[in-house]
Amino acid sequence: MSDEFSRIAKYFAPLAGEEGRGLTDDAAVLAPPPGRELVLTVDQMLEDVHFLPGDAPGLIARKLLRRNLSDLAAMGATPLGYLLTIALPDTVGEDWLAEFSAGLAHDQKIFNIKLFGGDSSSSRGKISLSATLLGHVAPGAALSRNGARAGDGIWVTGTIGDAALGLQARLGRLDDPSGFLTARSLLPEPRVGLALAGVVSAAIDVSDGLVQDLGHMCKGAGLSAVIRAGLVPASPAAVVCGESVLETRLTGGDDYELLLAIPPGQGDALRAACGDLPVTKIGMFQAGEGVHVLSDAGTMLRFTQPGWRHF
Amino acid sequence: MSDEFSRIAKYFAPLAGEEGRGLTDDAAVLAPPPGRELVLTVDQMLEDVHFLPGDAPGLIARKLLRRNLSDLAAMGATPLGYLLTIALPDTVGEDWLAEFSAGLAHDQKIFNIKLFGGDSSSSRGKISLSATLLGHVAPGAALSRNGARAGDGIWVTGTIGDAALGLQARLGRLDDPSGFLTARSLLPEPRVGLALAGVVSAAIDVSDGLVQDLGHMCKGAGLSAVIRAGLVPASPAAVVCGESVLETRLTGGDDYELLLAIPPGQGDALRAACGDLPVTKIGMFQAGEGVHVLSDAGTMLRFTQPGWRHF
Repeated sequence: MSDEFSRIAKYFAPLAGEEGRGLTDDAAVLAPPPGRELVLTVDQMLEDVHFLPGDAPGLIARKLLRRNLSDLAAMGATPLGYLLTIALPDTVGEDWLAEFSAGLAHDQKIFNIKLFGGDSSSSRGKISLSATLLGHVAPGAALSRNGARAGDGIWVTGTIGDAALGLQARLGRLDDPSGFLTARSLLPEPRVGLALAGVVSAAIDVSDGLVQDLGHMCKGAGLSAVIRAGLVPASPAAVVCGESVLETRLTGGDDYELLLAIPPGQGDALRAACGDLPVTKIGMFQAGEGVHVLSDAGTMLRFTQPGWRHF
Repeated sequence: MSDEFSRIAKYFAPLAGEEGRGLTDDAAVLAPPPGRELVLTVDQMLEDVHFLPGDAPGLIARKLLRRNLSDLAAMGATPLGYLLTIALPDTVGEDWLAEFSAGLAHDQKIFNIKLFGGDSSSSRGKISLSATLLGHVAPGAALSRNGARAGDGIWVTGTIGDAALGLQARLGRLDDPSGFLTARSLLPEPRVGLALAGVVSAAIDVSDGLVQDLGHMCKGAGLSAVIRAGLVPASPAAVVCGESVLETRLTGGDDYELLLAIPPGQGDALRAACGDLPVTKIGMFQAGEGVHVLSDAGTMLRFTQPGWRHF
């Protein structure tokens, strides 16, 4: 393994924007976009917690960026760039770094972001990664997970539960003949770029699991939520898995869809803001506390745990 | 161990500035200081690489902040706040978190910074920590490590080599009767708040070791450096260790003093900018390449490696 400085120069300096100063200085310098507020988030990806040792390095890199981009999406922010930390044990070689940095480069283009800086270290344990993402919003326009009001509809983008089923497939516990579920687990699609300001009362991304994340929204607003399990949108590949995976779908994490509180009468505005991305109403916020999941017959469903707790 | 959400609420939410929104949202929102540029840096602290398993959690927390604050100091930036990642194995309990967060709180007051956000996870390996620090500078006033010019003097703040000797003391390889060297290793003093803009040609913090960090400055400027080992300031505790520790002092890392390129005639301006903090001229930049360390007799000293490579 080359030393820290030469691997930064070889694999990461080519990814840096001018703010990163060639990654040769002690810090990055950023002129903030005039008249905008900055949105800042950080997420880790840890071996055996957030990814499996055999996962492709390029996909690990892209998921690292996308998990953070999803947090920016939930705040209604436009992505700007990121800082990166990597800690690699000696057993990780140049091939891994080459694929990892190529994955970063790929998603930098897709999401129009640049590397601002970072820190590279050896690790005496497992692979440990983090990214700090910066985005921007109009002053006061950042969304919050805590703004839901009684009577707001509960909506989700896309389909829910694919990533949790994909993880089961990757662990050999489920068939995924099309590979669709596996792909959703390895490479989520952050919902950046939607013009949600003024349309939603509250927003969160579904990272810990639908029920748990909805619980965060309820707690933040002092409300309860009632959703119908049968309304929670499933992909065709998830439908094939049958009714037995319902709990996995509703409590598994890693979807990175948006969960939204939408005032009555705003459904069309939401659809217009989301364009080709399907949105589905699955329930409603009301007085009280907790998340209540109803079957089609109207009975209350109970799950053993509300959300994902790592592998 | 309590779950991720309750430990965030208990230990970290009290540290958050309003930008952190109580740590209940997906991201922080920061109105950048008007008319200023932002300076961004991130550093990791990893168990068995940057700290020892038995080190006091409060000191680990403070050193994590201070290593990053030192990077801001080297850029001439005023600290603003930070994002934090922590990944802890199950063996780490509430006591550790209580002491760790108390250490953060302590240094937040000293350096007038606030917690903006973060990410907490379990770890299947060792303890892994990082902090992303934000600071601000006047537009165009950020210092660089790459601006040295031939004829500039090479100056350092404080004393050099204490932390490397302190590490040897912590490992039981050196006597440190006063505890001074150990303290310098565990709790560095970042040199923030010095008005260096317009005084220095280039600046870097001594984190990897004096010779290695000086080498970065040379490479960035296309110059060589000549320093006299006898001029490199030693603390009284380091002087007691004798001549045999010279290589350790000049190549050991973790000093977090500033290494500066100062144009001829600017020494008094530097002293005025540094106030009570001693500054010492140790050599000069000139044409050529590499770092040349001379003995008092004028012979060239050679070291087995230029800088710190982790434990």
